[in-house]
Amino acid sequence: MPEDSALLVAANVNVFYSTGRFFRGYVWIPRHGRPLYFVVKPQTFEPSPDVVCIRKPEQIPGEMDRLGVETPRLIGLEEDVLSYNDVSRLMKVFPQAEFFNSTPCLRAARMTKTAHELELMRYDGQRQVAVYSRIASLYRPGMTDIGLQIAIEGELRREGCLGFPRVAGNLMEINMGSVLAGDNADNPSPYEFAMGGAGADPSLPGGADGREIRPGESVMVDMNGSFNAYQTDMTRVWSLGGLPEIAYKAHDCSRSILRALEREALPGVEVCDLYFRAVRMAEEAGLKDFFMGHSQQSAFIGHGVGIELNEQPPVAPRCKVSLQQDMTLALEPKFVIPGVGAVGVENTYAVRGDGLECLTPFEEEIILFNQE
Amino acid sequence: MPEDSALLVAANVNVFYSTGRFFRGYVWIPRHGRPLYFVVKPQTFEPSPDVVCIRKPEQIPGEMDRLGVETPRLIGLEEDVLSYNDVSRLMKVFPQAEFFNSTPCLRAARMTKTAHELELMRYDGQRQVAVYSRIASLYRPGMTDIGLQIAIEGELRREGCLGFPRVAGNLMEINMGSVLAGDNADNPSPYEFAMGGAGADPSLPGGADGREIRPGESVMVDMNGSFNAYQTDMTRVWSLGGLPEIAYKAHDCSRSILRALEREALPGVEVCDLYFRAVRMAEEAGLKDFFMGHSQQSAFIGHGVGIELNEQPPVAPRCKVSLQQDMTLALEPKFVIPGVGAVGVENTYAVRGDGLECLTPFEEEIILFNQE
Repeated sequence: MPEDSALLVAANVNVFYSTGRFFRGYVWIPRHGRPLYFVVKPQTFEPSPDVVCIRKPEQIPGEMDRLGVETPRLIGLEEDVLSYNDVSRLMKVFPQAEFFNSTPCLRAARMTKTAHELELMRYDGQRQVAVYSRIASLYRPGMTDIGLQIAIEGELRREGCLGFPRVAGNLMEINMGSVLAGDNADNPSPYEFAMGGAGADPSLPGGADGREIRPGESVMVDMNGSFNAYQTDMTRVWSLGGLPEIAYKAHDCSRSILRALEREALPGVEVCDLYFRAVRMAEEAGLKDFFMGHSQQSAFIGHGVGIELNEQPPVAPRCKVSLQQDMTLALEPKFVIPGVGAVGVENTYAVRGDGLECLTPFEEEIILFNQE
Repeated sequence: MPEDSALLVAANVNVFYSTGRFFRGYVWIPRHGRPLYFVVKPQTFEPSPDVVCIRKPEQIPGEMDRLGVETPRLIGLEEDVLSYNDVSRLMKVFPQAEFFNSTPCLRAARMTKTAHELELMRYDGQRQVAVYSRIASLYRPGMTDIGLQIAIEGELRREGCLGFPRVAGNLMEINMGSVLAGDNADNPSPYEFAMGGAGADPSLPGGADGREIRPGESVMVDMNGSFNAYQTDMTRVWSLGGLPEIAYKAHDCSRSILRALEREALPGVEVCDLYFRAVRMAEEAGLKDFFMGHSQQSAFIGHGVGIELNEQPPVAPRCKVSLQQDMTLALEPKFVIPGVGAVGVENTYAVRGDGLECLTPFEEEIILFNQE
């Protein structure tokens, strides 16, 4: 952030990140000095000289004059997130200023977590693991993928999940997560999720499509772990009895990839190298055609995670970001085996000095559903 | 839409509205002639001369040249929805063109529904009513508001609800809906919902806050009705035994307002007149201080509803839109009574030539929870 500059923050996720709460309005974050809160509905605030009630952003410069706050030369606006008209309006509010896109620096700041944020994410992981440990016993004969998903949703919610996976961008729409049974995993997604699935309705393409869970097919569960402002992302696989050998081979390859990345993902390593390492291991196992999808393959194996499900950085071939201590990543090397379904493991990790700390520790074998 | 113009549509909701599916890419809708589909992930499409595979929007003009499609002088972009950078990038793609904001015309088009859309919304209403008819029996002694909400979510999902209430704008965040017990209804919302509620966590402020359901307090249920691309919006009130007299008085006033609006909301009537009529009736009943909230009052009594929960028009004092046949509206005249909670009824309606058709017909009394 340049010397003579300030950020004017308005997107929900960044308002929360910079203040610990959601409100309608703007956070003014100067390079030096104290932040100001311009609030449209101040009823949710305790009175404070830093909280200024406004009806519209055009009042901000006048209020800043009144408070003796100078307008800097450069103002950062969230140009990748706020609408064209919202940003254009804010630019007119400050006719003398120049502007820069604050989205990259806010996203970069959110990549690494404070001790408090990490504690919240560890809590998320513990709760998510507690729910996943009950999934085998949720199965009932004749159950569909949607039926299983609904049962998991209830368990998650009773465990304290807020039921709202906050995602970045307008290319991701999802309810509480994804359950993929059998070949539905090979239905391509129009969104940027690692896996696809036809979904229950064309209006929400992705995930479970209502098919019955059958022997010989895998059931991949990738459900929401948001028990506070943060979330963990976690995938495990279940089945009714045994699966074809290649499914176990691919699943073991996913686990081997995670073991390698857990050792090698040290501060300073470039994120793209994690991607290339995973691809190489899938190739060496002869599983390249099934890696990260089959009829449509995704070109990433993970992503940052935090307040939003899909934070920076993407673990993808062109991502030159260097890993930093306390960055959090969801790593999800997955395979889609035609006629069987999706296999593989996803964990959420924190980058530590000596490798990755797993925030979602839980058995990683393909788990058998209870059948009594 | 001017003669020499076209829309370039990219927002999910409008892509779905104009094509009946979601995909990553752009829909080109010329004033005359056939639309073109520029698709980033074409695997989800059947091959067709109108479907053009692109990697990035900069390829669109070249592909249009190849197809012999002329670029019009004026191009409409979704300036209220797409990000500043997305719109700026599209503007650079067509350096010779002028641009207009297509959001208002797309939102206006979506206000009135075709026969097919109305059928989908009637289906939503039937399913939502079926679930609401079971709510009284979901109550268990000692239940919290969140516990009741989770039970309703399960019923909704088993009835076919997709569990994803699509909302417009970035000032609304919600899970599957809102259950407000007792005084929690008076906790103000930072969002643009009619009612507030503290929510279960500061990161999702709104709705149930985990309090036990108690005698003498109302429980307002306003849960999601999206069983396809469309949705209905519906609120009813339950209680454990009787409530103070003023709660019934306010609840009856809400029903009287709906009865009046059902007769008077004819094609040609200005939407703001519905709002003023409702406010007048609340005032005449001596209930003005409790109308649409108490410690924070909302200045609207309803909204359009369809693919998004909060479509145009808002039923608000400054809305000069005239009602048209087959417009759909959720009307929700509600009251917050201190010490008791929220009361009132919300129905989703279609505007017909002779008044409103209720898409969510269900008993409107305050309903007693089953206690055995």
